[in-house]
Amino acid sequence: MAADRRHNPVPPTSTSKNAVCLLSGGLDSSTCLALARRDGYACHALSFDYGQRHKFELEAAARIAAHFGAERHLVARIGLDAFGGSALTADIAVPKVRSAGEMSRGIPITYVPARNTIFLSFALAWAEVLGSADVFIGVNALDYSGYPDCRPEFIRAFETMANLATKAGVEGRTRLRIHTPLLALTKAEIVKLAHELGVPFGLTHSCYDPGVGGRPCGECDACLLRRKGFEEAGIEDR
Amino acid sequence: MAADRRHNPVPPTSTSKNAVCLLSGGLDSSTCLALARRDGYACHALSFDYGQRHKFELEAAARIAAHFGAERHLVARIGLDAFGGSALTADIAVPKVRSAGEMSRGIPITYVPARNTIFLSFALAWAEVLGSADVFIGVNALDYSGYPDCRPEFIRAFETMANLATKAGVEGRTRLRIHTPLLALTKAEIVKLAHELGVPFGLTHSCYDPGVGGRPCGECDACLLRRKGFEEAGIEDR
Repeated sequence: MAADRRHNPVPPTSTSKNAVCLLSGGLDSSTCLALARRDGYACHALSFDYGQRHKFELEAAARIAAHFGAERHLVARIGLDAFGGSALTADIAVPKVRSAGEMSRGIPITYVPARNTIFLSFALAWAEVLGSADVFIGVNALDYSGYPDCRPEFIRAFETMANLATKAGVEGRTRLRIHTPLLALTKAEIVKLAHELGVPFGLTHSCYDPGVGGRPCGECDACLLRRKGFEEAGIEDR
Repeated sequence: MAADRRHNPVPPTSTSKNAVCLLSGGLDSSTCLALARRDGYACHALSFDYGQRHKFELEAAARIAAHFGAERHLVARIGLDAFGGSALTADIAVPKVRSAGEMSRGIPITYVPARNTIFLSFALAWAEVLGSADVFIGVNALDYSGYPDCRPEFIRAFETMANLATKAGVEGRTRLRIHTPLLALTKAEIVKLAHELGVPFGLTHSCYDPGVGGRPCGECDACLLRRKGFEEAGIEDR
């Protein structure tokens, strides 16, 4: 673990419940954090330096955690790049596309093996230490249906497993819930929701391409989906 | 990821199947690796530097991986100590006990939140990259019944989740199996099995206490269970 910024030195009120919020710094996870804050959770934001070549997203995550007053923001360092097998961690070019019709069918090369399983496992560990029963993750099953670990059946199976894995589950104290408020939304619906929640679009980072110095390339899957979402929502992406 | 020692430069034969074997360097995981090798698997040993204070076990893991001719041995660095909450990672004394009757009921303080969930998630990632459908873990439900993530119902739930999490699961190519050959054995039965398989007891390390320079303290849960197992098996622990 590296960066540990206590943005909000004020402890949560006795009525606010602790939650662990996975935060990549992209539009979806930022919207998910904003939702958890709106619903009164004291948010513990968790990001990962997993060997991704687009590390700029971690700076975006720190800005978003600060903006929404997360209790803490931890960046866990985990070397998934040692396993290889993905354009996000290995030396494989991030594919460029010009239209949604051109996007790859099936599971894209930007899929990182078992990434969400690992991310949720760390969130589970932190939740257990905090005594929290609430984990938020901004997965979306519509636009990203190519990723096996963004599907509702995966999330439910993880939740079942998690409730057998922990002290709280064994002792019957609490039942952990994996919150996926964006699961069934289109990108345009996420953009509208983000707009309502006051997500500062300019602080988020969605691009997968490491080669353009932190500026979005405009041509990868992530950039294309983001642009399409904003266009369909009729909202400007500043 | 840090240490990556290729012990065995000879590639596995075309008939040997790749397996990922979780390896702490203790008696149980060493026996589990020996079993996987006996059954003809090309073993990819995976250890974790997770902030445990008893880091000596990683040296034992490297010795055992070399001894049994693992294809590779990876040590993943993951800072679980940042979450705290366990005597194995936080600055809490490892409890001393003098008899099995004195061992704590319920979940011991040496339990590390979500540890096996995280370990298995990394194994899943590596298995997916290798195209392997076999993960070995030396969990044991009898002597360690205090750990929620050593129970059969947890392992089965993880397996179900894992088969929804990965490309192979989605595409119906392979069904991942979590092998737990020690699950229902007593410590004495594990000692006898290890003896039959030629596990070099002197190369393994079981003690949880970091304070005695790599020598077993003889008084923690792990030392006590090991001694009891050898005594009951009537085998000398050299």
